[in-house]
Amino acid sequence: MSTEPKECCLGSVGFIGLGIMGQPMAENLLKAGYKVCVWNRTESKCECLVEMGADMLRSPGDVAAHGPKVLFVCVTGTEDVKEILFSEKGIAKSAKQGLIVVDHSTIDAKEAADFADCLAGAGVKYLDAPVSGGDVGAKAGTLSIMVGGDEKAYETVRPMLEVLGQKVNYMGKSGMGQVTKSCNQVMVACNLMGVCEAMMLAKKNGLSLEKMIEAVSGGAAGSWSLSNLGVKIKDGDWSPGFMVKDLLKDLGFVSHLSQVSHAPLTGTNMVETLFQVLAAEGEGELGTQALAKVYEKLGGFEF
Amino acid sequence: MSTEPKECCLGSVGFIGLGIMGQPMAENLLKAGYKVCVWNRTESKCECLVEMGADMLRSPGDVAAHGPKVLFVCVTGTEDVKEILFSEKGIAKSAKQGLIVVDHSTIDAKEAADFADCLAGAGVKYLDAPVSGGDVGAKAGTLSIMVGGDEKAYETVRPMLEVLGQKVNYMGKSGMGQVTKSCNQVMVACNLMGVCEAMMLAKKNGLSLEKMIEAVSGGAAGSWSLSNLGVKIKDGDWSPGFMVKDLLKDLGFVSHLSQVSHAPLTGTNMVETLFQVLAAEGEGELGTQALAKVYEKLGGFEF
Repeated sequence: MSTEPKECCLGSVGFIGLGIMGQPMAENLLKAGYKVCVWNRTESKCECLVEMGADMLRSPGDVAAHGPKVLFVCVTGTEDVKEILFSEKGIAKSAKQGLIVVDHSTIDAKEAADFADCLAGAGVKYLDAPVSGGDVGAKAGTLSIMVGGDEKAYETVRPMLEVLGQKVNYMGKSGMGQVTKSCNQVMVACNLMGVCEAMMLAKKNGLSLEKMIEAVSGGAAGSWSLSNLGVKIKDGDWSPGFMVKDLLKDLGFVSHLSQVSHAPLTGTNMVETLFQVLAAEGEGELGTQALAKVYEKLGGFEF
Repeated sequence: MSTEPKECCLGSVGFIGLGIMGQPMAENLLKAGYKVCVWNRTESKCECLVEMGADMLRSPGDVAAHGPKVLFVCVTGTEDVKEILFSEKGIAKSAKQGLIVVDHSTIDAKEAADFADCLAGAGVKYLDAPVSGGDVGAKAGTLSIMVGGDEKAYETVRPMLEVLGQKVNYMGKSGMGQVTKSCNQVMVACNLMGVCEAMMLAKKNGLSLEKMIEAVSGGAAGSWSLSNLGVKIKDGDWSPGFMVKDLLKDLGFVSHLSQVSHAPLTGTNMVETLFQVLAAEGEGELGTQALAKVYEKLGGFEF
């Protein structure tokens, strides 16, 4: 296949990391009219995109050398990002002046800010741009995207981000996208704890879970968690929209951020502990609503 | 003023307890075309309703003797309800067979079920029907009303409840209205804790609170608490929609219910403790969003 840059109406971009999130995001960029060159650690995951017209390259450095103005990254952990950026075959070594790296991975906020500093030396702008909305949002192009970093670079990539997400927000300097994601996960965790405890109280006292959800969802007790995960708990459906192990990963970043900034998160720490119980019992790949299973154990009952 | 029952298009009802909630609720029944006779411990609070055409009576028993088919109660505590129902000048002594008492007070669920049992002996149906939505909802007639007790009695009073509230739900046998309210307050408390912790994390890390709220409200972190109380916390507005001391009262019922039903509410117990800190410092009459002030102390900062 060709590795020559091609002319395209909307320009050429790179995409690194074609997992459950990255694959549909890269697809959406292709469909929108961007020329996309891709790299993924497991090569076979590139096939589908290549069939749609993407170019597959041999390393993150090759993608950068290919000359895109914007390079998207969407991988799992801080170490993965570090390797993609700074290893021997990484982006920094072969990037051209002016490249903008948009990192959709959820990683440590302080490290994200460090990456931006390091890349600035090579004339590369790095935006931390974690997303929320899951694989469903990635496919539908309805993600929330929270962006930190250079504001001019943000304005440049905004039309592309609006292909990937419905709510695209500039949050401030480097790291602020990740801080926002941490704030998001604090509420995701605490709200879910409230839902589990309310549902336990209902179940233990003979109140219909269905009626309870219906009666209170629209008022002061209402939340996304109640409307979406409450129903799954009621049905004993533990299948993952978002996995326990992934929320635990994110709560690790929350925990680190809370330590370095002296922000004692009493409730979030407690929920994190309860999620650790689930993971310790080998249930890390269930959906986060499986937090209800910890309450089943605590209360000696079943939903 | 007349104490004679009058003919009226929609029938005659009694209303006992004209506080911040009861006053506008009784007004709405009057405006809807019901003939209303009222009693309140502090007589002066009846004046406004009397001017609108209500009859003021001398005791709860007098209201019951006046012959309404339905008698609403809206007072503060379990003991207040007990006195109104069962004291020398209470409802039970003079109620006519078939009277339906609709109790909008938030009280202990087990006591509510006991009240229903005791009144059944006198041929009186008692519905526990706590509300959510505050004085704003009471005025606008947009309360959520959660009803437990005899279903036929519920069907009889439903048209009246639909004057008072927008979401009227039958929850099951006696006490289930109160259990629902407790479930509601569990989530109200836990969601608010999540909001406070997320906002502390944002503030401590230099993230704009306004931008954070805007970026995450519509997604998986979204809640009524974030959209309504998050904004007040950002502005340092501690004025009460719903007071700390009132939520603490309700959390007392939650706590009792959790004890008798062996439902260990780890998160809710923690938030209750934090609210107790506020009350101990004399801040029980602030709005519940003042929970954020406890986090200010824990984290040594100010919103």
